[in-house]
Formats: sequence, C-alpha cells, structure tokens
Amino acid sequence: MRRLITTNMTEIKLTVQAPTLVNRDFVKPTLCGPGPCDVWPSVNEALTKPVISPICDEHFYVLDDIRAGLKYVFQTNCDTVLALSGSGHGGMETVINNLVGPGETLLVAKRGFWCERALEMAKRYGINTITTTVPMNETFSLQQLENELRKHRPTALFIVHGDSSTGIVQNLKSVGELCQRYGTLLLVDTVVSLVGVPFFMDDWKIDAVYTSTQKAFSGPAGISPVAFSDRALNKINNRTHQPPFYFDVKLLSQQWNCYGSTRVYHHTLSSPLLWALRQCLQEVIKETLPRSWARHAATTKHFLKRVEQLSLKTFVPKPEDRLMTVTTVVLPKGYDYLQFSKYMREKYNILIFPGIGQTVGKTLRIGLMGVNSTIQVADAVADAVAGTLIALKKSSL
Amino acid sequence: MRRLITTNMTEIKLTVQAPTLVNRDFVKPTLCGPGPCDVWPSVNEALTKPVISPICDEHFYVLDDIRAGLKYVFQTNCDTVLALSGSGHGGMETVINNLVGPGETLLVAKRGFWCERALEMAKRYGINTITTTVPMNETFSLQQLENELRKHRPTALFIVHGDSSTGIVQNLKSVGELCQRYGTLLLVDTVVSLVGVPFFMDDWKIDAVYTSTQKAFSGPAGISPVAFSDRALNKINNRTHQPPFYFDVKLLSQQWNCYGSTRVYHHTLSSPLLWALRQCLQEVIKETLPRSWARHAATTKHFLKRVEQLSLKTFVPKPEDRLMTVTTVVLPKGYDYLQFSKYMREKYNILIFPGIGQTVGKTLRIGLMGVNSTIQVADAVADAVAGTLIALKKSSL
Repeated sequence: MRRLITTNMTEIKLTVQAPTLVNRDFVKPTLCGPGPCDVWPSVNEALTKPVISPICDEHFYVLDDIRAGLKYVFQTNCDTVLALSGSGHGGMETVINNLVGPGETLLVAKRGFWCERALEMAKRYGINTITTTVPMNETFSLQQLENELRKHRPTALFIVHGDSSTGIVQNLKSVGELCQRYGTLLLVDTVVSLVGVPFFMDDWKIDAVYTSTQKAFSGPAGISPVAFSDRALNKINNRTHQPPFYFDVKLLSQQWNCYGSTRVYHHTLSSPLLWALRQCLQEVIKETLPRSWARHAATTKHFLKRVEQLSLKTFVPKPEDRLMTVTTVVLPKGYDYLQFSKYMREKYNILIFPGIGQTVGKTLRIGLMGVNSTIQVADAVADAVAGTLIALKKSSL
Repeated sequence: MRRLITTNMTEIKLTVQAPTLVNRDFVKPTLCGPGPCDVWPSVNEALTKPVISPICDEHFYVLDDIRAGLKYVFQTNCDTVLALSGSGHGGMETVINNLVGPGETLLVAKRGFWCERALEMAKRYGINTITTTVPMNETFSLQQLENELRKHRPTALFIVHGDSSTGIVQNLKSVGELCQRYGTLLLVDTVVSLVGVPFFMDDWKIDAVYTSTQKAFSGPAGISPVAFSDRALNKINNRTHQPPFYFDVKLLSQQWNCYGSTRVYHHTLSSPLLWALRQCLQEVIKETLPRSWARHAATTKHFLKRVEQLSLKTFVPKPEDRLMTVTTVVLPKGYDYLQFSKYMREKYNILIFPGIGQTVGKTLRIGLMGVNSTIQVADAVADAVAGTLIALKKSSL
C-alpha cells in the first residue's frame, strides 16, 4: 500500500506519545465457569466473514436468518424477536425499561446475583420495586408468586430461569398463566439456560425474554437476543414512558423488520457478531433443540455423579432444581473457594469460578455448556477437582 | 465429540420447528461509504483470538492496553477512558445521559443527521434542548456559539467534529475555552473523524468524546471508545440523576480500572471486539497518528482533484471545512443519487452511499478511510464515478 505523507501534518506536536502494547502469549484455559464459554470452531470462523453494510441485501438476509433462528430457540411465533447490540445486561435493561415505566411496579422474584442487578436497573427508571425471596438454593412456588401478584398486582414480574450464581433452574410452567390472571407481564432471564435447558416462550406465556450468546450458545458476548409477546408489544405501543433510544424495541423492531415492512436505520450493527450469532443458531438447528437439551442434561448428570463419588455436596439439594448448564458444588470445610479455582487454572488449565454475591465463599460454579458440554470435558473437570481436593488438603488443611 | 442423548428430552414436542438458513455466497464490495469500512487484515485475525474471561489477568492486560491506546488516539491524559459495549449510538447516548440530567439544558449545534439523534436521545431523559443551526454545508463560528452560550448558559454543548451526513469537519479549537467561560461542558462526536483527522481532547479542552471503530479505525462495529475530562468526571461524581445502568460511566470506569484500584464486574465484555479494538490501536500506533492524519488528507485531496476533473462539485464549498474521511459530491442535474449508488455497486462492486436526512437527494457520500484510505482505492472510486456518470447519462438523461 502506498502511503502519501504531507509534511505539515507529520510535524504536528503530540500531547500524548504512542504507548507500546506488548503482545503477550498465553495458554487459553478450557472455559468451564458460568461463562463466557468456549466458542464453536465454526463460530470462530464466522467472525471473520466479510463486513456487511446496513444498506445491503446481504445484511437484511442475515437479520432475517437470525430472527428465524431465534424464533426457534425461544420457541415463539411472536414477531418482536431480534438481537440487541450489547451484552446480556443490555438485554436485561431493555426488557425492563421497555415494559415498565416510572411509577409502575416491578415485582422481582429475588434469588441470586442477577435479580440484584434487575432491581438496581429498575430503580434508576423511577420504577417501584417489590421483592419476594426464597433461600439461595431453592426455587419459587406458584403459591408464593400468586400471593405477591394478588397483593401488589404489579405491572411486571421479573424472574430468572437459569441462575448462574446459585446453579438453579426455576420451573416456569404455569407462571405465565398466573401473571395473565393478575394483569402482570412476565419478564424472564434465560442468559445461562437457553439452548441448554428446555424453554417454551409461547407455551409458557412469557411476555419478554432475553439471553446471551457466550453461554450455552458457545458464541462471543456482545449481542443479546430478545423476544416480546404480543401482550408486551401492545404495552410497547401504548406506553406513555420512553426508554433510552439505544434500547427502544419500538425502533429496533423497525430496523430488524419484525413486521415485514420496514428496514429503518437505527444504529450500525456489529458485522462479526451478527455472523457469529447466525452460526451459533446454525449449530443449534443442526443438532436440534431437544438433542442440545438432552446433551446438556446428560453431561451435567454425569458430572454430578462424578462429584458425588468424590463425596462432595451440590449446593442445590433438589435434583429437579439443578441447572443443567452450571453446577454449584460445595467444598468440605477448610477449603478456600478462590484458592481452589486458582489451583484448577494453574495446575489443570481449567477455568472454573467461585461464588458471586450471596454465594461467595459458599460454592464453586462449574459450567459445562455449549461446545464444552461433553462427557470428555466433564471427566476432565471432575478429575481436576479430585486432584485439587487432594493437593490443597495436603498444603492447607 | 461423543454426544449423549436421554430419550425423554428428544421426544419433547416443539411448538416451532427448526428453520433452514440458506448459506448465500456474495462478493463483498469495497466499502467506500461513510461506514462501516473494510477492516485491517490483522484486525480480522484478531477477532479469532482466544476468548478471555473477565476474571483472568489476560483480560485485564487487554483492557489496560486498550486504555493506553485510546489515550493516544484521543490525545488525552485524563483517566476516564474506556470502551463501551455498544455501537457509536451507544457512545452518543452515554455521553449525554452521564453528563446532563432531567431539567438541565443541552445546547445542540445542529447540522446533519447525528444532531437529530442527539436531540431525540436528550428529550427522552427530560433534558431541555436548545438548538442553534447553520446551513447544511457550513460550519459554526465561535461568535455564533458564544452568543448561544451567553444567552442560555447550558449544562452542555453537543457538537459533531466530523459529520458523515454532510462531509463537514468542524473546527473545534477554542470552543472548549469558550464553554469553560460559560460553565458549559463540551460533548463531541468523533465517530467518523478520529484517527483520520487531527483531534486533541486535552488541548482543545473537550469534556466528553465518543467514537466508533468501524470508520477510520477500520475495525468492526459494536464497541465505542469514550473519554471524559476531569471536569466531566467531577460532574459524574456529583450529579443527582442516574443514567441507565448499562451506560453508567461511574460503574464502567470501575470495571475498566480507570483509577488504578478496582476491577469490579459490571457486564461481560465481548472478547473478539476487545481483541479487534486493541489491534486497531496497534495499527494506529505502528503508523503513528500524524502519519494516519496525513495519509487520510492526501488520499481525500487526491480524490477531490479527480472529482474536479470530472467537473463535479463538492457539497462543501470551503476547502478547510471538508472532512478528510468522508467526501460529499454533488451530481449534475438529472442524476438520481440512489440509482447512481446502486450502479456503482452493481457494475464496479464499490459501495458508496447516497445522502441521509437533510442530504437525501443532494449528495453522494464517499468514504476513503482506514485501510481504504489509499491512492489506489481513491483512483478506483473516481474511475467508477466517471464510468457511472457516462453510463447513466446515456440511459436516463
């Protein structure tokens, strides 16, 4: 490439000199925390596909493909389905601020770290927040939720389907019907559950849902799929409050051509993330959803068996409450969770996480998701846990 | 990979069947619109680097490198420098909602499409908006800005440095001093100017700035560098309003360790976009900022000469007001801008854009940026423009 130089510019004095960025080599660990997860090889390739420009047909085809794939993974026939240009936290904020306005009430089924985030977000918009809670390692009963809905008749109920901070999956069957009975919209976090655990947006009458791509999707973070029911859409079309421009689903659904008539420019989408998400969806379609769910269940059940053989306890007592993507494991007295995780990385190059929020010092968080949801990886992690138990017993107990 | 199947799950009946996503081949055009631009080969490679996890040292090194590189390209010694997980529009919204609260006043120097966006965003937060305007192809004088600042003493002034909708670069020298005199914060859009055009955050006393990576950076969209002055930081620390959680620079600067003491988890950053941005910065550092500015100026001046030889007019009359990344060209009477752009793509596989907003039907928008800022690409585009002028004259005039 020929680079022309005009001398006057190169003589400009800079205030800040160029830094030196050192290229450090590192051996990537196997990512077996609650996320980010390793990516599918095909998704890694997809990241380098040609840049697509927002005014070209190629761009529109990719958006249409993504919407079709998302309808499949969310199991919905609703039209308001798209991917937000941001992380899962962006999805969380979008679902809340599009559906609940200042002065309206959001009931949060509070357990684990992510509900705290939802509460913090809601308060920033002047939303009245109410919480109902359960012990960290239990799920909400329909009865408890109904009592709160009856008492407060909130605009919306926020609940987490798969909770990576506690390793719990919340049974959502009948929660949607309950919400409809009390005129409440049902908002669901599926960041760490979707594609790994059965989920049926339409059948379960869920009004708004968001997820992330760096968990069971085995893709890169930075793009957050969201879906809204027709009830939710009705609220969006008739609300009096205005969400932030960047998160406004009314505008985003026009950019994503959700209703088959508009391709209105809203912001520039990230080409590599679009290609990557499309490829994640191709992987799910190739395997099929039921087989993906079955694989995650089989892998995690195998891992749980291995953990039991090591005489370790799982943090979640009831088998039916255990999340099949992220497992929480309790160490015997005397072990330090942070030290344990560090040793796993240093000795075995396997990355697992200690607890977060309420679960700090109470559990390890081990994710077997997406490309890492295999018996081989489960065995490798279990072997490393066994080795670490012995090594740290000698040195620290 | 061995995939275990438990039969009960694979027998679950799906509501929505798997779609077929057709893999379509297409020949990517040379991207010579106002963005997205083509990416550096090294940046494309960087997209596939190993996933880095938010609790690992490798992750922190990358964030530190990015901050060092951003301080260089923004030419600032301020500490509140980081990259937002979103597009340039996310950067725009962040800069506004972190610094201007409900009931406070934002003065918008209104010319072109992006100012309309800034106004739309500001209104959503209950901010009082005031505008001052100039003809589409002119810049603001200090006198005009001072009159408005004196009259309204706004909390902040929003102004666009490089405007891709009109092809204008706004001289910002002394605007910062002026703003300080009236107690006003200066917010600047450098989406299409940074790295391509000289910019000095500290010298010009700018309080908040954001940019995009898919323009002169020649990287992927989806991550938006932002920087805040100490005056702006003071406002952030003492404001009474709360911006959206996702955009809160107070929290983000803790995640990015802006002040050397915290690595607080806020949201999961996009690993490929972090690697890509780091590599974009490596490219600028390798070339140096002054040489990058000089190359963009030389390329665009060469292109302007070629355009004049075709007897075409530029949309911006004064040479010093012309943006050296995106050039706006006026076609002779009788040509249709949309048809012209389409023909350029179909015949020459070069993507240029027609006008947007106020400039629809008034100009072509041709970007020679980043990896495409070379004499060869400029000549190829000029040759294609010449050919299209002849072809469409025969067929349509």
